[in-house]
Amino acid sequence: MRTVTYGAACSLDGFITGPDESLDWLHWSDDAAAIMSKYWSTVDTILMGRKTWEISLQLGEPPIEMPKMHTYVFSRTLDHIDGKGVTLVKEDPAEFVRTLKAKPGGDICLMGGSDFARSLMAAGIVDELGVNVHPILLGSGVPFFMDAGHRISLELKESKTIDGGCVYSTYHVREAGSGKREAVSQ
Amino acid sequence: MRTVTYGAACSLDGFITGPDESLDWLHWSDDAAAIMSKYWSTVDTILMGRKTWEISLQLGEPPIEMPKMHTYVFSRTLDHIDGKGVTLVKEDPAEFVRTLKAKPGGDICLMGGSDFARSLMAAGIVDELGVNVHPILLGSGVPFFMDAGHRISLELKESKTIDGGCVYSTYHVREAGSGKREAVSQ
Repeated sequence: MRTVTYGAACSLDGFITGPDESLDWLHWSDDAAAIMSKYWSTVDTILMGRKTWEISLQLGEPPIEMPKMHTYVFSRTLDHIDGKGVTLVKEDPAEFVRTLKAKPGGDICLMGGSDFARSLMAAGIVDELGVNVHPILLGSGVPFFMDAGHRISLELKESKTIDGGCVYSTYHVREAGSGKREAVSQ
Repeated sequence: MRTVTYGAACSLDGFITGPDESLDWLHWSDDAAAIMSKYWSTVDTILMGRKTWEISLQLGEPPIEMPKMHTYVFSRTLDHIDGKGVTLVKEDPAEFVRTLKAKPGGDICLMGGSDFARSLMAAGIVDELGVNVHPILLGSGVPFFMDAGHRISLELKESKTIDGGCVYSTYHVREAGSGKREAVSQ
C-alpha cells in the first residue's frame, strides 16, 4: 500500500503561513534540503485542493518540477485544468485516494491546503505526518492542522533538531490504512 | 534577573486540553517527572490568571504543594483570596511582573491560562518557553498559544524525545527581558 504523507514547515504555534500569507520566516538550509530530497525520491504523486492549485498558478510555475510526477487537483467547481501531468478530480477525494493507494506506484504527497488535508485526515486516508517546527510564534495565519472532528492518535517515528533551531518530527498515523482510526469521536 | 517560563504539555495541534477540558491523553513518565523535578527546583513563584486559580480550587487542592512557593493570582474581579502563600493582584499584570522580576528570588513559573499568558507574552515579560508535544491530534480545545498581536522570535535551547513519543523542547524568547521584542507588529 502506498503511503500518503502530509507535511509542512510551521511555526511553534502551528501556522504554515503568517498573517497576509507571509512566508518570509521560513528557514531553508542544507538540513532541510537533504530531508526534502530524500522524501521526494520516494514520491510520484501529489494531491492538492483547488486553493493550493490556484496559489501554485499564481506563482507561475508548477508546484514541483519533477519528471514522472503526477498531480491530482480536487475540486467540484473547476471545469478543467490545463497542465502536463495534472488531472482534475471532481469525485469524492476520500474514495478516490483510497483507490489510488491500492494501485501500484510510489508514495503520495498530500500538499494541502489545510482544509483539504483535514478532509482526508478525517477519512483515515493519511498515513504519515511530517512537521518542521520553526522557532517563531506567528500569532495567526493558516493553521497546519484543522479539526478532523475526532482525536487522531499518532506514533512518533523520529524527531531531530536541524539547522536554524528547527525541530523536524515525523509521525505514523495509527490505523490510518484501514480507514478507521482508534480515535473516539467527539 | 529572574526568569519567567511558560510551559505545558500539548497535542501536536497545540491544545493543552481537548474538547470538554479533557486531559486523559496526557502521558506521565519518569522522563517527564525528571524534567519537572529539575524545573521546580529553580522556581519559587507561580503566576496565574483567575480562571486557572478557580480551576485549581475546583480540584480541591493547591496547584503546587511546595513549601516556600508563593502564588500570585491576577484578577480585577475577585475581591479577596484565601490561601496560604497566595496573593491576589489587582493591578496591571505586566507592570507587576516586570517589578517582580527585578527583585531577588528564584525563577517564576507562568502557569496560565492561555489568555493570561498571551497578555504577558505580548508585553515581552516571558523569557523561556517549554513545550512537551504529545503524539496526538485533539482537533479542538484550549490552545497553548494565543495571538500576542505580533510575531515573537524564539531561539531553540534544547529538543529531545522522551517517553511516550513526546517531544520536549525549550526556547528562549529573544529580547523578552527588555520588554521590547525584535518582532514586527502586524
